Amino acid sequence: MLDVTLCGTGGTTPRIDRHLSSAYLRFDGHGLLIDCGEGTQIAVKKAGMSLGKIGTILLTHFHGDHVAGLPGLLLTMGNEGRKEKVTIAGPKGVAEIVKALTVCAQELPFSIECVPMADFDTLTYKDFSVTAFEVYHTCPCLGYDIRISRAGRFDPDKAKANGIPVKLWKTLQQGIPVDGFTPDMVMGESRRGLHVTYATDTRPTDMIATMATDADLLITEAMFGEEKKENRAKETCHMTLPEACGIAKEAMPKRLWLTHYSPSMPEPELYAETLEKLWPGGKLGYDGMTETLRFEE
Amino acid sequence: MLDVTLCGTGGTTPRIDRHLSSAYLRFDGHGLLIDCGEGTQIAVKKAGMSLGKIGTILLTHFHGDHVAGLPGLLLTMGNEGRKEKVTIAGPKGVAEIVKALTVCAQELPFSIECVPMADFDTLTYKDFSVTAFEVYHTCPCLGYDIRISRAGRFDPDKAKANGIPVKLWKTLQQGIPVDGFTPDMVMGESRRGLHVTYATDTRPTDMIATMATDADLLITEAMFGEEKKENRAKETCHMTLPEACGIAKEAMPKRLWLTHYSPSMPEPELYAETLEKLWPGGKLGYDGMTETLRFEE
Repeated sequence: MLDVTLCGTGGTTPRIDRHLSSAYLRFDGHGLLIDCGEGTQIAVKKAGMSLGKIGTILLTHFHGDHVAGLPGLLLTMGNEGRKEKVTIAGPKGVAEIVKALTVCAQELPFSIECVPMADFDTLTYKDFSVTAFEVYHTCPCLGYDIRISRAGRFDPDKAKANGIPVKLWKTLQQGIPVDGFTPDMVMGESRRGLHVTYATDTRPTDMIATMATDADLLITEAMFGEEKKENRAKETCHMTLPEACGIAKEAMPKRLWLTHYSPSMPEPELYAETLEKLWPGGKLGYDGMTETLRFEE
Repeated sequence: MLDVTLCGTGGTTPRIDRHLSSAYLRFDGHGLLIDCGEGTQIAVKKAGMSLGKIGTILLTHFHGDHVAGLPGLLLTMGNEGRKEKVTIAGPKGVAEIVKALTVCAQELPFSIECVPMADFDTLTYKDFSVTAFEVYHTCPCLGYDIRISRAGRFDPDKAKANGIPVKLWKTLQQGIPVDGFTPDMVMGESRRGLHVTYATDTRPTDMIATMATDADLLITEAMFGEEKKENRAKETCHMTLPEACGIAKEAMPKRLWLTHYSPSMPEPELYAETLEKLWPGGKLGYDGMTETLRFEE
């Protein structure tokens, strides 16, 4: 099962009552963090998630509200005893940004590997497979399509048909090749896994809908609640809530969560009725909102 | 009158219930901020102080818990419409640190002037006169001695004795030289002003006591509450509460406030009795603590 948490849901500037937008995905005890604005380390803790389990941080882009929390978060991870490498992925230039920001975090007890991501690059971290895709903002900005695959069931008939000795079945079932036999010789068709698409700080694009097609969850932005703010959204390369719903109508994800609200929108819940009309079941994200996604039976 | 506010009182790592240590001094509508760790912009707002009025930021040193909030704070000041220059003072290298951290805050609508400060350098900002002094930490670190001067009263007898025409009295009283006469020719002896000494992230030093002698307020650190933590304090170049009181005993400030608590000390108020014994009237700082210091009548 995959726990997905919105640690913060604010854009541009933190509010006293709202942290900057970030998301935490946890699968099999491993954490993947998306974005790290100022205060994210506190938002993660408030949400009950573990800083120490974050192995990979995905940065959508390098505006302050998405990266300025990095030095503090890394320092606290170090103070709490992390020793293992942390991977930080983001658009081209990620290494330079991380180097600059960590000028005040010089003595970390773990290494950092920076991975610049271009359109459709994929990286894997434990069970997560992450594909970056370009979105449309005022600077280079990436969305992330995150998948957790699920192997097929063990198929004894197939194992027998392939003439595999019974004593090797368990090893092959564990995914380990042995004596010239390979796991696919004992396993059925792979099954539907889990699929989360994340895209904020962007105008609506066809690629967001393409990536989120049939996703278990699309997390995207609703910087502005009202349709009449569309011009402002265009100017700042953000989206309105109706525009976000337009993407959902194309992609048909199982769930839609909205986040990254303008600081001028203190009560996103005022738009709950609009959302329910445009995309029934869609959710207005809030700090600490969490859901566990499970494999289909 | 001078309003002094501790926006945050934590050291090393922010806690959910405690911001990192920073102080805000406000005099005649102008704000001076000391230190800017992650979350300081929120701590300032929670304390009811204005980000837009901050004209000078004093950095004690460049550890993350004292500077990582700079890009976010500056960005929000910009978003809120600040146009006037902001001065950022700190130890040698301040310009390089600010340049690195603002890599994610590239389009500020105001300029930043960085002022490297050495031992006993003084800078002025509006009515504030700030003298830096070296303290003893694991890296170069400054304390700040802040004074607000107070002119003498207008002295009509002195003005007459100096043969100054009555029509020039008002101008000279406003501190403006006119017709070859100077303001000191109409003013009495200057009076006692206000004096605040700030020193955190340091072992006890004689210079802190020298600077804080007879101060209206000494703000210093009590990273650890108990005397038995003195070895830990020595290792990390911090102070215990009894050591802070030792400085007060030498300096005899009118007020003593303690701040910059270890994250492992969730309840500083447990040491209230110890403080009252060692330095009666001393105060354990807390986020948002504020007091107005007034000129003597």
